[in-house]
Amino acid sequence: MDVGFIGLGIMGKPMALNLLKAGHRVTAYNRSAGPRSAVEQAGARIATRPADAARGADVVICIVTDSPDVEAVLTGPGGVIEGAAAGTVVVDMSTISPAVTRQVGARLAERGIRMLDAPVSGGDSGAIAGTLSIMAGGERDDLERARPVLEAMGKRIVHCGPLGSGQTVKLCNQIAVTLTNLAVCESLVFAQKNGVDPARMIEALSAGAAGSWQLSNLGPKMLRRDFAPGFKVALQRKDLRLALESAQQTAAALPGLALVSQLFAAADAAGSSEEGTQALLKALEALNACVVASDTPVRA
Amino acid sequence: MDVGFIGLGIMGKPMALNLLKAGHRVTAYNRSAGPRSAVEQAGARIATRPADAARGADVVICIVTDSPDVEAVLTGPGGVIEGAAAGTVVVDMSTISPAVTRQVGARLAERGIRMLDAPVSGGDSGAIAGTLSIMAGGERDDLERARPVLEAMGKRIVHCGPLGSGQTVKLCNQIAVTLTNLAVCESLVFAQKNGVDPARMIEALSAGAAGSWQLSNLGPKMLRRDFAPGFKVALQRKDLRLALESAQQTAAALPGLALVSQLFAAADAAGSSEEGTQALLKALEALNACVVASDTPVRA
Amino acid sequence: MDVGFIGLGIMGKPMALNLLKAGHRVTAYNRSAGPRSAVEQAGARIATRPADAARGADVVICIVTDSPDVEAVLTGPGGVIEGAAAGTVVVDMSTISPAVTRQVGARLAERGIRMLDAPVSGGDSGAIAGTLSIMAGGERDDLERARPVLEAMGKRIVHCGPLGSGQTVKLCNQIAVTLTNLAVCESLVFAQKNGVDPARMIEALSAGAAGSWQLSNLGPKMLRRDFAPGFKVALQRKDLRLALESAQQTAAALPGLALVSQLFAAADAAGSSEEGTQALLKALEALNACVVASDTPVRA
Amino acid sequence: MDVGFIGLGIMGKPMALNLLKAGHRVTAYNRSAGPRSAVEQAGARIATRPADAARGADVVICIVTDSPDVEAVLTGPGGVIEGAAAGTVVVDMSTISPAVTRQVGARLAERGIRMLDAPVSGGDSGAIAGTLSIMAGGERDDLERARPVLEAMGKRIVHCGPLGSGQTVKLCNQIAVTLTNLAVCESLVFAQKNGVDPARMIEALSAGAAGSWQLSNLGPKMLRRDFAPGFKVALQRKDLRLALESAQQTAAALPGLALVSQLFAAADAAGSSEEGTQALLKALEALNACVVASDTPVRA
Repeated sequence: MDVGFIGLGIMGKPMALNLLKAGHRVTAYNRSAGPRSAVEQAGARIATRPADAARGADVVICIVTDSPDVEAVLTGPGGVIEGAAAGTVVVDMSTISPAVTRQVGARLAERGIRMLDAPVSGGDSGAIAGTLSIMAGGERDDLERARPVLEAMGKRIVHCGPLGSGQTVKLCNQIAVTLTNLAVCESLVFAQKNGVDPARMIEALSAGAAGSWQLSNLGPKMLRRDFAPGFKVALQRKDLRLALESAQQTAAALPGLALVSQLFAAADAAGSSEEGTQALLKALEALNACVVASDTPVRA
Repeated sequence: MDVGFIGLGIMGKPMALNLLKAGHRVTAYNRSAGPRSAVEQAGARIATRPADAARGADVVICIVTDSPDVEAVLTGPGGVIEGAAAGTVVVDMSTISPAVTRQVGARLAERGIRMLDAPVSGGDSGAIAGTLSIMAGGERDDLERARPVLEAMGKRIVHCGPLGSGQTVKLCNQIAVTLTNLAVCESLVFAQKNGVDPARMIEALSAGAAGSWQLSNLGPKMLRRDFAPGFKVALQRKDLRLALESAQQTAAALPGLALVSQLFAAADAAGSSEEGTQALLKALEALNACVVASDTPVRA
Repeated sequence: MDVGFIGLGIMGKPMALNLLKAGHRVTAYNRSAGPRSAVEQAGARIATRPADAARGADVVICIVTDSPDVEAVLTGPGGVIEGAAAGTVVVDMSTISPAVTRQVGARLAERGIRMLDAPVSGGDSGAIAGTLSIMAGGERDDLERARPVLEAMGKRIVHCGPLGSGQTVKLCNQIAVTLTNLAVCESLVFAQKNGVDPARMIEALSAGAAGSWQLSNLGPKMLRRDFAPGFKVALQRKDLRLALESAQQTAAALPGLALVSQLFAAADAAGSSEEGTQALLKALEALNACVVASDTPVRA
Repeated sequence: MDVGFIGLGIMGKPMALNLLKAGHRVTAYNRSAGPRSAVEQAGARIATRPADAARGADVVICIVTDSPDVEAVLTGPGGVIEGAAAGTVVVDMSTISPAVTRQVGARLAERGIRMLDAPVSGGDSGAIAGTLSIMAGGERDDLERARPVLEAMGKRIVHCGPLGSGQTVKLCNQIAVTLTNLAVCESLVFAQKNGVDPARMIEALSAGAAGSWQLSNLGPKMLRRDFAPGFKVALQRKDLRLALESAQQTAAALPGLALVSQLFAAADAAGSSEEGTQALLKALEALNACVVASDTPVRA
């Protein structure tokens, strides 16, 4: 298919490369020049405005940072709205506000342009491997039309409901991810403070009712003091802000989300903004005046 | 081996039956008469005092409710301490205070009686199937001597460290279990409040970084409004109390644990004391004046 | 002095009347017609655009609801910026974002217009009585020039620092107010759950180290189930949102603020949006499945 | 009156001296010898067992540290129960568990001995000045009989209800005190992080709806980095533990209490166990990687 692609960041660049690999024709736009040459060498055409990337496309993929960025590249001057034909399906794969998603979708609909929101989980490794989980909101027909494009980037595609539902489910994902992360951190601090090797604790817990992706994947990294991202604290804080804003607007009372957001602020204050989310542990360590570590490896 | 067995409750009875099935000779004690006949018919002898159950035993298994119960049956009048020979290995599989564990172990050690703490996870279904996870504390030699007995009851046996470490790791397990449970509840409330079918949310999240045993197992029960235990809120509250007491004694600051403990108190206040831990959702629902439910099944 | 006055709401109307009473010449603007006649009868001129209220004024007072409102009336089309002469002191007495305050101030400064932020506490009763507390940010010289106007409306004027500091201190006020409110609510629930008459509890506590304005003023209202505003839950939630946004931007980790914000969301979900902030009690009651009340009056 | 007095600690010693000053005849017991001579020189007789201090007394005052201490000196071997005559009024002024209070009272009642619980607030300065606030539980008649003794030690005596109510209200006091303390700490951190002099913040807030004893008294100490006790973190943690235990038993869900308890644990972990409760600020500072301080004095 003819695909317009907006945003060649850590996620977007490998996603665009996977589209090319799957045989789609890609016209890409990125604000800065850096990542353009890699996708150009792989066969993409380069556009200088989002509108130009959208011209003639069946599907336009957008993956940028935050709500104002999506507004700018989709409905701002020189944006997709100026280039896309009626009937084009615009798929915003950024993680942004569900409310802004619906506003942008309404603007595009005035021109007959279709919109899906389809944020992802799986990180840059999932983007490279083409194994992202995709949480899609919008009309089912539009999803079916975009599906060949989405399947080149992700493995699991769940239709969550009408436009905005993908963003809502992505924020659910971030709520669950961060509270499960907190579950890991507090268990580790408890073990450490009580003189138990936290590596043994991870082994004992991982196969049972306390088991989670976070425990099995981030737990051992924490013990090795490996705080390289993965997914950065700064981006996690952005997503938690979006979740809290949506919760504010719907009068949802989520005390765990509120707590873990403050602990991520503490991790940020401790200097971990550019580290991975496993640095949440540092907030708990600051509070407990302790360091969690183990000399022994975690046995599977 | 010759095994004394103290406590034929929901967990203890099937564990004793598994010992008999594996060919061990069991002498069992239970405070009330009810569950005795089942194990007697399966080949156990019945003792009228813990001391008598311990006489001649290589290994004594104890699984009762709380710290004072363990003190009573092990070191109280007529307790195991009065019947067990020097060298006997007493294995307390109850979930109690690590500090009380160490005190009881010291009393037994004065008579040359060995002690392990070996609390379990896996619930009554794991007890019946013989697939419990066992978190063991104490001397490694003692664990090796008791291993044939433990292997008849559990599948995964982790040596966590010196006496008391099993209890500490079990409390880590309860901290992680309850905060992961909270992760599930808050995600569900967020989905519901934002008009997304929570069944779709569970599907989208379960295979990724937000995935957990709690999400996959308790999430669908919550949506079906199936609050049958599993593990009861009342017992979860007991274990959280033990965790908070240990945290108090070691000046561990665990704000997530503290929060989820209060939400379990709210579930209790809402009348869910005898329901399963998935009733934590009801605390969040009370706070949000909403009900989370879905008419559609969760697809695996 | 010649005073432009923007915003004749519950706070603004009595403040404008106090300015007239003190002999200032007032030109007032309000979006809707309702409250205009009262100030007109008291001697004010009515303007149809903020720009017209500002024309010829020494000082312009602005008191509207939220950050976008301030942006609109000060720097939007037809705003104060189009009517005020260089050297005019614009005093924004709304409670808004400190960051937006500084942006607006910078825009005004380009035209030589001076700005102070001067949010207030004391409620509508303080506005009527002219006894508001005023938290002022900006240049000290500008504050001195506006002081005769401010003194007609408030009793206590504290210069908090440069532009934006007044808003910051107002948000500090809201943090302290809401957490002290929570202190009152949790004490009351504890008394009720333990069978003690909460009226006796308030008497015993109010003169000591637990004493506060919130306890003495909101506590007795709570026991009488008097939830009439005072200051509305909906407005408190707006101010808490501003505080959390500022905290987010400065990586301040404030777990108490985060918690109480969620409990105000719960009060909102329970239907108390238009009630006074003492309805925070209802969030705690929902969580505890109890009602706090006393048949006996609180003795001073 | 003839008064037996048990416990000559930081609080007890000045209270006993005030009784002597008011003309009561005092027979005092203290576990260690240190503080005995001061009260002996002031005219007290010294007893070597609590039973002996109680013999012939109209009223017995008890002020020791924790629940087990009260059990020991009142109903243990050589305790008050062995020396007091039927009709004697025993007044326990310690802060302990309401449940233990009722148990001890029942034991004493079997011998016809009357009991009041009457914990205090006001600190060692209030004990010296004789201006304590006294929160009394028990029969009103017994309170009237003990009143002449209590009035020599305190200024404000509130009858809170039946036996145990005094302890319940004292725990309410500690809940309100600590959450109001948290209100102060979070406001200060917010000011500091946003570049506002926290001394100006205290000035602006103290006379309004955010005003409290904690803000006016502990706030300026925090800014001077004066962490001398007052009331020690270690004792505050004991009282919070009692409050949480009572909450646990009555299924009271108090998320603010739970949070502030963890922050006091963090203050303890930061080395502030023997400092005053204003060291709660240090927990917030650890979380925020900041120090709150001001070079300028707080103006009244």
